[in-house]
Amino acid sequence: MSPDQHFAAAADLSAHTRLPASPRLPANPAVAIVGATGAVGVELLACLEDRGFPLSSLRLLASPRSAGKTAVFRDRTLAIEALGENSFAGIDLALFSAGSGISRQYAPIAAAAGAVVVDNSSAFRMDDAVPLVVPEVNQAASEGHRGIIANPNCVAIIAAVPLWPLHRLSPIARVIASTYQAASGAGAAAMEELRASTAAYLEGRHYANTVLAHPYAFNLFSHDTAVDPATGSNGEEAKVMQELRKIMALPDLRVGITCVRVPVLRAHSIAMTVEFERPVGLDEVRAALSAAPGVRLVDDVAGNHFPMPREASGQGDVLVGRIRHDASDPSGRSVMLFVAGDQLLKGAALNAVQIAERLLP
Amino acid sequence: MSPDQHFAAAADLSAHTRLPASPRLPANPAVAIVGATGAVGVELLACLEDRGFPLSSLRLLASPRSAGKTAVFRDRTLAIEALGENSFAGIDLALFSAGSGISRQYAPIAAAAGAVVVDNSSAFRMDDAVPLVVPEVNQAASEGHRGIIANPNCVAIIAAVPLWPLHRLSPIARVIASTYQAASGAGAAAMEELRASTAAYLEGRHYANTVLAHPYAFNLFSHDTAVDPATGSNGEEAKVMQELRKIMALPDLRVGITCVRVPVLRAHSIAMTVEFERPVGLDEVRAALSAAPGVRLVDDVAGNHFPMPREASGQGDVLVGRIRHDASDPSGRSVMLFVAGDQLLKGAALNAVQIAERLLP
Repeated sequence: MSPDQHFAAAADLSAHTRLPASPRLPANPAVAIVGATGAVGVELLACLEDRGFPLSSLRLLASPRSAGKTAVFRDRTLAIEALGENSFAGIDLALFSAGSGISRQYAPIAAAAGAVVVDNSSAFRMDDAVPLVVPEVNQAASEGHRGIIANPNCVAIIAAVPLWPLHRLSPIARVIASTYQAASGAGAAAMEELRASTAAYLEGRHYANTVLAHPYAFNLFSHDTAVDPATGSNGEEAKVMQELRKIMALPDLRVGITCVRVPVLRAHSIAMTVEFERPVGLDEVRAALSAAPGVRLVDDVAGNHFPMPREASGQGDVLVGRIRHDASDPSGRSVMLFVAGDQLLKGAALNAVQIAERLLP
Repeated sequence: MSPDQHFAAAADLSAHTRLPASPRLPANPAVAIVGATGAVGVELLACLEDRGFPLSSLRLLASPRSAGKTAVFRDRTLAIEALGENSFAGIDLALFSAGSGISRQYAPIAAAAGAVVVDNSSAFRMDDAVPLVVPEVNQAASEGHRGIIANPNCVAIIAAVPLWPLHRLSPIARVIASTYQAASGAGAAAMEELRASTAAYLEGRHYANTVLAHPYAFNLFSHDTAVDPATGSNGEEAKVMQELRKIMALPDLRVGITCVRVPVLRAHSIAMTVEFERPVGLDEVRAALSAAPGVRLVDDVAGNHFPMPREASGQGDVLVGRIRHDASDPSGRSVMLFVAGDQLLKGAALNAVQIAERLLP
């Protein structure tokens, strides 16, 4: 960003919607991570390093509580700074993952200061002026951004990656899904609560859960977001429904979903029935998925080897298997799938970095 | 059973289908448990004790490996005997839970010896001459038994208990389900593998799984039964589909299901979309479920408290909650539910004992 651009942007801190459309990144952007010490923040740092992101500088921002801590990036020790209104001077790319409140307050400031914000929170996802992007699906939507690009909900991303090539194969009318969501979606503290409460259970010790609302050791429960009495959907389910429609640009896509937290550390799984508008063959479904970016078929019927969180963790693909017709729909229009993807990577940090990579010259 | 009856039955060991229809039990039956040391066997013993089953004597049978061990019933120590062809002399009720092979071999012998067999294995479930019974649904089917009554698959039982009152409210056309199945369904050794592999994981030790095909600690996987390449369904899914149709006497009920093993110890959960033939109101759904035997509503929207394996474990009801219309079906005919039931109790031992209780005079 030129100093002139910086000045123009900084002149109106709330003006992110008025910035010129589609600013791209310079070849070697100055990058900031907001929420650098969180579960996703740590993965953002790792993704930038692992993927050789061509940044010129990296600023790590977090709450004042974390200021003074350090993190290592490319063998250099970086100090973590407290986030403030002046944190974004000279920043070209700001990767936010510190919750909706922080994003609402600081993402417009960062955008106004000239940064492109890729925001992992739900703050701006359904804002008409903000693209909601899964690069394999709708990277082109990024082109219209006005300073902020939203990274979708983790379930929406992991579902969209296989749903999009299927929709391109043959239009999808309806999706019915049940999720098996990992602790990581509730943050590093929830992952630790799963570990600690499970250890206590195994040792016969009492454990008082403080992060999640229900005991987690060898237990599962409906997603902890509030249920809307009017619809019966919880917040997570509502996000997935509306975000899938926006990402896939299918405002009439019908989605029914049950979101469940299971005692798994960091990869989400989803059982889906995908109802197409016309009957589809399994061979064409498999071919479409095989050719799809970001999808890896794990569908070894003879070996009874299908997508599992353990194998989805620590890698970037969405694993897809158990591909079959839904026996409850004799029309042949409904196909069942079981998918798994790393919630912290493709469901969050990796998707954000992939969005940014595609804005590089 | 009189000596004459015993003699007549023993004369033809394979004649269980030729016994007089509907023998009921005497007021104080002599009872045998086959598989007394297994996960379900232990619960059978506990159910008989807890429910004050009016037995006159109890014989505990198991493999020769377990012979000589003991178990306590009503403060008396009972020796466990090796199962043999002569184990059923004088037995009125034989509760089998030692796998399909043992049931195929010994259940006809027990029936021919005059016992009523309640068989927890899948050996006879789809035999037209064998009733498949969930007492809350089709206890009357027991009346037609010819010596063997089959106890259904655990998922089929836990699903049928809430589906039946819904079907009586308004005919059901289709069920789409995803399961969250506990270790107990694979036996006591699988429960121990979950505990031991999780402890190893938490301590950073390697654990080589020997009971289940995949690592279980903080992981989940498609049910370990073989997938039929022709249908894409695994063995568990096929059982649930066909058993639900038989239990509910709905040969045309369309069922699509994905069966998944999750790292939970002993209660199964199921996310279901129930499609009725006509639109239904949620109030009538709730009223039907509230009044249904064996169902307990756990549907506290304000408190975000819904069925969980932890609360389903160790008790006999099927917990039902997350009752809402499926947002993907604008017709109002589809209702979503989340249910949980103890796999070892209502999914196995308790259901078997309940079947037997209803055969008492």
